[in-house]
This record gives sequence, structure tokens and C-alpha cells, in this order.
Amino acid sequence: MAMLGRRPVRPSGPVTIHDVAKAAQVSLSTVSKALNGTGQLREETRDMVRRVAEELRFRPSEIARSLSGRQRRTIGLISSDHHGRFSLPVLEGIQDTLDAESISVFLCNAAGDPERERQHIHSLLANRVDGIIVTGTRATPRHPLNLEGEHLPVFYAFSRVVDPDYPCLLPDDRGGGQLAGEHLCRLGRSHVVHVTGPAHVEAVQHRRQGLEHALAEHGLALPPERVLTGSWSEAWGHEAVDRILAAWPSTDAIFCGNDQIARGVVDALRARGVRVPADIAVVGFDNWEIIAAATRPPLTTVDMNLHELGRQAGLQLLTMIDGGEVRGVQRLPCSLVVRESCGGQMSQNRG
Amino acid sequence: MAMLGRRPVRPSGPVTIHDVAKAAQVSLSTVSKALNGTGQLREETRDMVRRVAEELRFRPSEIARSLSGRQRRTIGLISSDHHGRFSLPVLEGIQDTLDAESISVFLCNAAGDPERERQHIHSLLANRVDGIIVTGTRATPRHPLNLEGEHLPVFYAFSRVVDPDYPCLLPDDRGGGQLAGEHLCRLGRSHVVHVTGPAHVEAVQHRRQGLEHALAEHGLALPPERVLTGSWSEAWGHEAVDRILAAWPSTDAIFCGNDQIARGVVDALRARGVRVPADIAVVGFDNWEIIAAATRPPLTTVDMNLHELGRQAGLQLLTMIDGGEVRGVQRLPCSLVVRESCGGQMSQNRG
Repeated sequence: MAMLGRRPVRPSGPVTIHDVAKAAQVSLSTVSKALNGTGQLREETRDMVRRVAEELRFRPSEIARSLSGRQRRTIGLISSDHHGRFSLPVLEGIQDTLDAESISVFLCNAAGDPERERQHIHSLLANRVDGIIVTGTRATPRHPLNLEGEHLPVFYAFSRVVDPDYPCLLPDDRGGGQLAGEHLCRLGRSHVVHVTGPAHVEAVQHRRQGLEHALAEHGLALPPERVLTGSWSEAWGHEAVDRILAAWPSTDAIFCGNDQIARGVVDALRARGVRVPADIAVVGFDNWEIIAAATRPPLTTVDMNLHELGRQAGLQLLTMIDGGEVRGVQRLPCSLVVRESCGGQMSQNRG
Repeated sequence: MAMLGRRPVRPSGPVTIHDVAKAAQVSLSTVSKALNGTGQLREETRDMVRRVAEELRFRPSEIARSLSGRQRRTIGLISSDHHGRFSLPVLEGIQDTLDAESISVFLCNAAGDPERERQHIHSLLANRVDGIIVTGTRATPRHPLNLEGEHLPVFYAFSRVVDPDYPCLLPDDRGGGQLAGEHLCRLGRSHVVHVTGPAHVEAVQHRRQGLEHALAEHGLALPPERVLTGSWSEAWGHEAVDRILAAWPSTDAIFCGNDQIARGVVDALRARGVRVPADIAVVGFDNWEIIAAATRPPLTTVDMNLHELGRQAGLQLLTMIDGGEVRGVQRLPCSLVVRESCGGQMSQNRG
């Protein structure tokens, strides 16, 4: 080995494992193996690395902190989402936080299966993770993780728990509905219909309440019959347009509970010769770019900021791991993304 | 503690940590802590568990195999995909395989950033994973992972490597294009146009070759001018329809490079009064359910079987970890999902 005779220069600051690796011209992992006496290494490599570490006065105990899996912080991430459209940005946000702190992530996809979730929890406890984040669909509240009596910080991101005391971050759907309503009112629309998802879903109720609140502030009512609940689909948007045009021809705005419904609504209105936004303005929810931007015209829609939600969930779990107390349901504000489906201010003689 | 005086019954087979946990009426993790002398436990709990383990003649060395993070197999999963539409089903497939083997997964999202990927590799090596799966977009081939001289099995799933010797599983796009072409020929369509993504993309080239091959087998040619390349978007589908109707009014089938293009094509044809499938049959690619099923009429499309691709990638990595040799690019067959956009067999007097 050519570098055997080389005399390492001791760096001025505290010696790190990186300094040893650099001086010995080997990888971090080789240094770790050599000093921990683990893994497969040639005898001469092991000796060389140890000599270099000694000459640099590197304290092997530092390895534990800097490299060992036991000392390194790890967290478990249990996802219970099947198709993951919402959980992906949440996951990415969580990972941005954890990457910045060099925390490793054990990923477990329980896909909503309780038995699989139980096995994952076993595995995470066996791997002695420092905390767990649960993500998933939030349509129906879930039971808290059963940690079998262990005490471990658990944070719920975009996942509701039956007991509202558990630390949990959700989008502020009520605020999101309010943003949509305020936008429509500001543009002079006054005959608003709401086409949304299944009535029992909490997010559906909250978005509706937000819309109602915004309209009320502008002296407008949202009669219950003008809230049409159905499935989260384009097909439901088409069907709803038939009903709306028949029942309330003076409708000048439709706020949709998600972008798929909005896409169906816009397509159906166009097919019937109704101009969007000139005749009827449309607002969606989700800012699912691939749908919202491809709609003709592109959808003005509410964004739940799921990436930021994930980032903040990561930070909150870290707070809990550090002994901080985090409790109860928190709500992250939504944003309004303005595209073309609402147009500009309406002229005074309309509505 | 009520169970202190209880006499555990020794099970007939080899004693597992589960037997100890059951007999002591504590969690697996408590048994592990008690026998390993780690974690925080009350003295009496620790003593009780040790007594139960002794009475059952449980060999503490078995804990290492069954519970310790060091002995347990772990693999690293490096994803370099930003928005993840394709990587999600691949990830889920990988996890199905690994779950079945009780292997833990370290998830790393490098998001295509080489520096971030380098840090993740450091972290995975430090955590002594048994192997790594790389997933990501495959539009441009990537460099192999730089393992800094370590020897570790690495498998590339839905991710191309510049050197074709590296073990890699990709969809059989050529076969997928052929399935689409054969379906259209079998239905009696003979004037086929191909509207697809960017010309430099390997998948675009392969899908086209597959289509060409299928048409040739039915004595039909695919002149280069009838292959329109553009972006992977609905907007491109709309634009392409304008060109197709102007240039080749006898067109009776359009095979699209993805479902978004197909969605744009179908919408544009409808807007121009062209009936799908009666006048023109349309086939998509991806079977992206949320688009394909919502199109009017629903899209017949090619499915890359990404979940199965992930499952097989997991199995192949396990083969490599067990010392088996896996090399080179393998291709997983696609399937055709028949919905309504191609209709049934055409009558003889057409085309």
C-alpha cells in the first residue's frame, strides 16, 4: 500500500473520522471497521488505519457518535397510504428535515393493514428507533400506534387519530375553503355552488364551513341545497354540472372540493357552451399540478402545502425526541394558487 | 407484579423470544432490553424477565438473530425521483418483497442531487446495510453509485446505468409498443399515427420500435412523419390532433406515448366532433388509472407493471446478498389494459 509510509498532518481543530479517512486514503466505513474491529478488512489495512488514527490522536470513542448505527439517530416512518398521491410530498418534506440533521429513516409501508403495521412496529422497536412518524390518508381517524408499553415519541402527519390529544399536523381545510370563498367574493361572484366529496369526510365539512364563513362575511348565504356532495371524481363533476345548470342558471361560481371534480366541472361546462371563467368561475382544491395546470383553462386552486407539512412534522418529532412536549391537533395554513379559471374582477352590472 | 409467581411452561419446539415475552407478559422489546441490559427498565422487571428466560432455557444469543439491529438484515433504498409518480408503485413492490423477509429498509431520497446522494451512501455504509436498491427516473442514464471502494450488492430498479453491465430491471417498452400495435391491427385499424414524448428518450424510441414491429407484421408501415414527438403533456396531445386531422384525415388510430398525451388527444378529438373509438381508436401508455379511467371514453393503455417490477427488484437484490450473481439489463413485460377507447373490431368496409 503506497500510503503506508506517509506521515499524516494533524489538523488544527478536533480530529474527526473524516480526517482519519483522508489521511489514510480509505473510506469512512473502512476506518470504522478498522477501529471497531468489525467487518472484513485485510490485516495490513486495519493496522495502517489504526496507526494513522493514533498519529492523529483520534479518539476511537468518537466513532460511536459519528458512525455507529447504535448512536446515530434513526426514526421510523410508517405510511398507511395505498396510492400515495398525498403522502409523497409529505414524505419528501419529512425527509428534507431529517436529511438536514443526518437522521436515518426506516421506511415501513403498512398500507392500512393492521397486522402488517404491528410487524413494522416490532421491527422499529427492535431497531431502537428514536421516534416514529405516521403518515397516511386521513379520511377516517385511526387508532394510535400500539407500542406495547414502550415510551417513544410518535407524531402523526396528515393522519388523524381518534383521540385529539395525540400530536398531529393536518392541513387547515377550513382556512382553505375560506381562501376560495374570499377570492370568489372579491372577484364579484355572488351565486356560488359548492361541489365536493363524500359528506362524512371531515375535510369536506371543514372546506364547506370555510366557504360559508367567507360568503357570510360578504353578506352571502350558502343554502344547504347548493352544497352537492359526491365522489372525488371527474365523473361527479360532470354530473353536478347537469344539476347546477338545471336548478340554478344564475350560478356564477363553483367551488370544488378537489381538482378532479373541478376538472370534470370545467370540461362539462365547456361541453355545454358555458364559458369559464366569463360565465362561471371555478376553484379547485389540492393544486395537483398535473391536473390543475392541464385543465382548460388552468385551475385556480387551494394548495395544502404538504411538503411544508412534512417538513414541520419532522421538526416536531425532533422536538419530542429532545424531550419537548407536543400535543394535540395542529393545522397548517393552505395557500391559494391563482391560475385562469376565475378570471379577473367581474364588471359591476353582473351578478 | 402479578405474574412474578407464575411458572412458565416450556414450549415443545425451540424457544423464541416470543415465548419469553408471552410467558413474562411483557413486550418483545422489554425482553430484549432485560436480556441485553440496555434501555430503561425497572430492576424487578429486568430480574423477572431474566428468570422467565432462564426457566424456559432461552439462549440469550438467540436475541441477536431475532432482534438486534446489527444482525437483522437491512437494505438501503435510494430514490432519485422528484415527483414520484412512477417510483411509488416500484417502492411498494420492493417493500412487499422485503416485508415478506422481515428486512428493514433505510429510505433515502436523493432527489437527483449528487451531493445528497453521497451523504446518503455514507450513512448507509455507516449503518452497514446488506445491499442497496436505486430507483428513480430513467429518462437519462445515471452513473453507478460510488461506494468508495466498498463491496456491496446494488440493484437498479426503473433506473438506467451508463454501463449496461450493472444489474438493472426496466420495463419492456418495446414489447409494450408492440402490444398496442397488435391490438390496433387486430381491431382492423390500418392508418396509425404515433404521438409521443421527447425523441431522445430511450423509452420513446423503444415504444415506437415496438409499434413499428407490430405494424410490419401486419404488412403496414409507420412512415417517420407519422411519428410526432413532443412533450409528455395533454397540451401536446391537443396540438398533435390539429396536425393529424389536417395532414392525414384517413387516420383511424392514434397510439400515444403516455396517458396524458392520450387524454389530450381524446379531448381534442371530441372537441372537433371526431368520435372515439368509432372514427379514431386511441391507445395510451402507463395505465395511470386516475387519468386513464377518467378519460371519456376510458383509455385502453399499456401497463408497465411497476409494482411487480419493484417486487422482482427486491428478490434480485436478495439473490445478490445471498451471493448469487445478477448482471446486466433485464426487461419486465408490459400488459395491455383494455377499456373503451379502441372499441371492438371494425367492420370490413372501413379503412
